[in-house]
Amino acid sequence: MSKLPNITTSIFTVMSKMAIEYNAINLSQGFPNFPVDEKLTAIVAKLANEDIHQYTPMAGFPPLLSKIATLVKDSYQRNILPETEILVTTGATQGIFTSIQALVENNDEVLILDPSYDCYEAPVLLCNAKPVRVSLNEDYTPNWETIESACSEKTKMIIINNPHNPTGKILTETDFEALEKLLEKFPRIILLSDEVYEYITFEQKHISIHTRKSLRNRAVVVSSFGKTFHITGWKIGYVVAPEHLMREIKKVHQFLVFSVNSLSQAAISEYLDIVSVVEIGGFYQQKRDYFRQLLSKSRFKLLPCEGTYFQVVSYEDISNENDVDFCKHLITEHGVAAIPISNFYENGKDLHLIRFCFAKDNPTLEEAARRLCAI
Amino acid sequence: MSKLPNITTSIFTVMSKMAIEYNAINLSQGFPNFPVDEKLTAIVAKLANEDIHQYTPMAGFPPLLSKIATLVKDSYQRNILPETEILVTTGATQGIFTSIQALVENNDEVLILDPSYDCYEAPVLLCNAKPVRVSLNEDYTPNWETIESACSEKTKMIIINNPHNPTGKILTETDFEALEKLLEKFPRIILLSDEVYEYITFEQKHISIHTRKSLRNRAVVVSSFGKTFHITGWKIGYVVAPEHLMREIKKVHQFLVFSVNSLSQAAISEYLDIVSVVEIGGFYQQKRDYFRQLLSKSRFKLLPCEGTYFQVVSYEDISNENDVDFCKHLITEHGVAAIPISNFYENGKDLHLIRFCFAKDNPTLEEAARRLCAI
Ligand SMILES: CSCCC(=O)C(=O)O
Ligand SMILES: CSCCC(=O)C(=O)O
Repeated sequence: MSKLPNITTSIFTVMSKMAIEYNAINLSQGFPNFPVDEKLTAIVAKLANEDIHQYTPMAGFPPLLSKIATLVKDSYQRNILPETEILVTTGATQGIFTSIQALVENNDEVLILDPSYDCYEAPVLLCNAKPVRVSLNEDYTPNWETIESACSEKTKMIIINNPHNPTGKILTETDFEALEKLLEKFPRIILLSDEVYEYITFEQKHISIHTRKSLRNRAVVVSSFGKTFHITGWKIGYVVAPEHLMREIKKVHQFLVFSVNSLSQAAISEYLDIVSVVEIGGFYQQKRDYFRQLLSKSRFKLLPCEGTYFQVVSYEDISNENDVDFCKHLITEHGVAAIPISNFYENGKDLHLIRFCFAKDNPTLEEAARRLCAI
Repeated sequence: MSKLPNITTSIFTVMSKMAIEYNAINLSQGFPNFPVDEKLTAIVAKLANEDIHQYTPMAGFPPLLSKIATLVKDSYQRNILPETEILVTTGATQGIFTSIQALVENNDEVLILDPSYDCYEAPVLLCNAKPVRVSLNEDYTPNWETIESACSEKTKMIIINNPHNPTGKILTETDFEALEKLLEKFPRIILLSDEVYEYITFEQKHISIHTRKSLRNRAVVVSSFGKTFHITGWKIGYVVAPEHLMREIKKVHQFLVFSVNSLSQAAISEYLDIVSVVEIGGFYQQKRDYFRQLLSKSRFKLLPCEGTYFQVVSYEDISNENDVDFCKHLITEHGVAAIPISNFYENGKDLHLIRFCFAKDNPTLEEAARRLCAI
């Protein structure tokens, strides 16, 4: 009777709710706890009194579309056409759902890496298509040979997530070369690239799929102002795609939401004039380094983190519990909420790993670390 | 290659764009041109400085869910459970799309009345289901016999729109009795009731489907704060459904947008404490009466308008052109934009009717009428 029989309440909802219930420090669901830039909230307060409360055009508030074109020009190393290649969405999630609905058909196969963020599979299932999971290597790099052997004429889409949630892994030029070679053999395959943490990278710069000429004409890139500007509640994201794909995505968007919150779009549009996204990477790099330093005295083992605001740790020296139970105990006994990594695997594979979100103010990180170091 | 081969740019986008291009008075796309209540914009400006910029819970900002339960208690004549029966959506459009995706399966049939607002068919097609159009009577009342004869075991959903866009027709108790009888014979059928103009009714009060005990357990009702509070750009709507249906709708919502603009939800929540929705009907009744009076001196023939902020008129005494061409000429030659009614028919049936939106300040209505009376 259910079209999604295996879907239950998401782990993010479960853990955030439990964190509130037990008054635990919530390092589970990914959202910042520090104030939004006052310059941005001042823009909102000012715009609230202006004539900005009716529908924007379907694809987005025109000045915002232009600003997005300017914003991505640097990272994409090319000019994007605001009118035909950009769509503003209700967060990246809606961009992903809409792109899949527009491009994936009955009986198609869609490759999803394992582990992966949890929002890719349901939209594929709702298209009567088949999600095919392909394991990442042990160090979470993509194994292009395994990926290639999973591709066939049935494959319509490969979904990548770069930087990768939850592992923080970033794709390299070598990855893109391998991907290019692979795709030469499968002209039908479209790439869906979830790049919501594109500005939250550390030692290594994020490389957009749009920088590669042979890929950009078959790639749909999704990004998020929620992540970039610490406004996850605003739900403003965007999709960049070549016109022949964007045309189909807009058809679905038109009937899925028609348009997106006008005030938020106008505010981000003004804010983009005065903010530099480059600073965001540096800001989160300090957070990451500080949090890792604080945890270095704990019994948790820290995995590498190249990007995103998530730190994965192993608790294998602490407990034998499965990771869901361990996360629950962490909340009830130690007052810190995390996300079990098994959640991101198709089969719930449990490697005794959990994920902390370090997008928090320093006192919060310090108190969380104090509690975690006491274990 | 396209999943929606017959979809082109919506008539609302086409006409609004053309209105701007020719500097015409835009009575086409339905949105108000007068300022939003200052009390509401003051709430936004105040909240912008508060801690309201991160994800709300998936189903909606909890205080707003409670306020919606209070709001609908009157019209539904029953208690709705905020936790399990209400979902806040990115406008009513997302509520409609999400409900159809959650409840309509492969090869199901979905009954859509003809004429109808244009956002019901695409989500049905994307489910690999079949939209079945059933003609309304000539006076735009539903013909329950024709509807019944279109029902079969394949029918999963009947979509109704009450008050009806574009015709302004309201369903009566007699309609609901007929619907009840019909549904007794088809236990599988779910109702999707688009009630976005529920507070914009005139002589006759809107009757919600939830007032009828035998219907409420199989009905999904969609409404819109955009229409009710003149904030179409905010894109905040909501769905009310019994728990067994809502559970499925939330599963899709979780992966379609996850959550909805936090600041707008919080602002509406506060605003609901100080505003009375009852006044909205009176406000628009004055607009309707004034606009009808202004047009009474024109050569257009006015059809009845029981609800919504749309007035349908016949131009058969003025021109033989088809309604799309007539609307274009109205913009280019007379400086007024309208929507051709053929747009709402499956087969584009042209009855020489067009729709004006009267959600405009009086000077705008006066100038539009002056131009229309000169034809
Ligand atoms: C949409 S809730 C989850 C937020 C998030 O991106 C994460 O925690 O991974
Ligand atoms: C979503 S744009 C169309 C607005 C509207 O509801 C109408 O004009 O009928």
